Amino acid sequence: MPFDPASWFTEAIDETGTAFSLKLKRKLHEEQTPFQKIEIFETETFGRLMVIDGCTMVSGRDNFLYHEMMSHPALFTHPAPRRVLIIGGGDCGTLREVLRHPEVERAQQVDIDERVTRLSEQYFPELCEANGDPRAELHFADGIEWVDKAAAGSLDVIIVDSTDPVGPGEVLFSETFYRHCRRALGEDGILVQQSESPLLHRELLQDMYRRMRAAGFAQQATLHFPQPIYPSGWWSATLAGNRDLRCFREQDAAQKSFACRYYNADIHRGALAVPEFLKDL
Amino acid sequence: MPFDPASWFTEAIDETGTAFSLKLKRKLHEEQTPFQKIEIFETETFGRLMVIDGCTMVSGRDNFLYHEMMSHPALFTHPAPRRVLIIGGGDCGTLREVLRHPEVERAQQVDIDERVTRLSEQYFPELCEANGDPRAELHFADGIEWVDKAAAGSLDVIIVDSTDPVGPGEVLFSETFYRHCRRALGEDGILVQQSESPLLHRELLQDMYRRMRAAGFAQQATLHFPQPIYPSGWWSATLAGNRDLRCFREQDAAQKSFACRYYNADIHRGALAVPEFLKDL
Repeated sequence: MPFDPASWFTEAIDETGTAFSLKLKRKLHEEQTPFQKIEIFETETFGRLMVIDGCTMVSGRDNFLYHEMMSHPALFTHPAPRRVLIIGGGDCGTLREVLRHPEVERAQQVDIDERVTRLSEQYFPELCEANGDPRAELHFADGIEWVDKAAAGSLDVIIVDSTDPVGPGEVLFSETFYRHCRRALGEDGILVQQSESPLLHRELLQDMYRRMRAAGFAQQATLHFPQPIYPSGWWSATLAGNRDLRCFREQDAAQKSFACRYYNADIHRGALAVPEFLKDL
Repeated sequence: MPFDPASWFTEAIDETGTAFSLKLKRKLHEEQTPFQKIEIFETETFGRLMVIDGCTMVSGRDNFLYHEMMSHPALFTHPAPRRVLIIGGGDCGTLREVLRHPEVERAQQVDIDERVTRLSEQYFPELCEANGDPRAELHFADGIEWVDKAAAGSLDVIIVDSTDPVGPGEVLFSETFYRHCRRALGEDGILVQQSESPLLHRELLQDMYRRMRAAGFAQQATLHFPQPIYPSGWWSATLAGNRDLRCFREQDAAQKSFACRYYNADIHRGALAVPEFLKDL
């Protein structure tokens, strides 16, 4: 079939030698914020698509995989997650999933770019349906500073729902940042961070594990899940903490009071399975 | 980054509205066989790539995911897999994995196009390293007829490692074909077939389950796994049989005598986890 790039959005990545494209109906919006360029497209088969600085961020069709896996495993691993901080996550999809947990008393979302959230409210209203929840706080600020200033032991779960570890997102993968998270979480807290493609970014995982350990998180565990619009279609999130992160509240997960489209207790356990080629992490 | 389609191989699929591209070094080979057009490329980051009729078939980098998941789960589900038939699979990667099982006494591979195998021997020698095994039989014939003529109960495992269910591959997804498989396998045998993307081809899975049941396979179970070069990067294989396909020889899998790059007992169990949106299958 002839491929006419003009009618597709393509994210081509030289370093990985891969490109992914979605067929477009039309562009709905484009703006340059003080932080980044945001584009919104209507695609033929994946619903709406948000693109930031040329990278696919979220689509209407497959975001449930990412948002559910960034939130539920961490929250079901913590024994009683009451205070949750989301760094990044401006599309509000992770926040929505966090607030499905009745134990959560306060969920702070700290994204540096308010425009991501405002555009998400406009173009992805389903992701923002929990924004009015009295437990939700939407802050537009620097997440690094936010964690730095957070009181010691004041958080149960920190979710780093950020862009790739290049450019402004890089500092979110540093030992210093992890050290601040460790302090804000106290002894029992859990950090979870998106950790790229297991196939394409193996070295990033190694670096993350090393830095997380150096920052005082004794345990790490990586969850694997599909995410078609991200490079390779295979994505991961890495948990860090000081408890056994391969144990979770399985019965609570099996009897959860809310519906998911991907996540369940079996999926959680399965996502923790370590492929042979990653066994030496 | 500017995307110049000339230096990438792109498989663009109108029905799914998705395209996947790999950056190329050069084309190594192209030929039209009596059955199909075969192209071989050297890619920048995925090793060599075989393309049949414009569809990515196998790459040096990620084929281990597919080949291991098409073989080991089925073979560890059967209590004693001695006689294995592979329909398609001309690149020989599945055959190699099957022959790692010491219980296997005979592995027949039946692909209609001998050129796929000859080109694989030339360009993917690592996939063909078991072709000289005395237990291996390479036949170049019509797989449908082969199963039709097979003696009743003469096989333990049939692996359908075929192209997509459009065009010539379509009949491999028919109730009639499944009925012939059922007869050739006898009461205890197991069929496993690649079953496309769980996200993009949900209806195919529904149809497969229905036809497999109508053909006399009481049980079905779908395994999910990553496969970056296939549409959505998320792929599946479906088991059919008359035993509980969610039970497998876990201890044998955990103590297997051969090395894998993806598969292990945890991965097997995890691949059987059913995402919420597929629970009603």
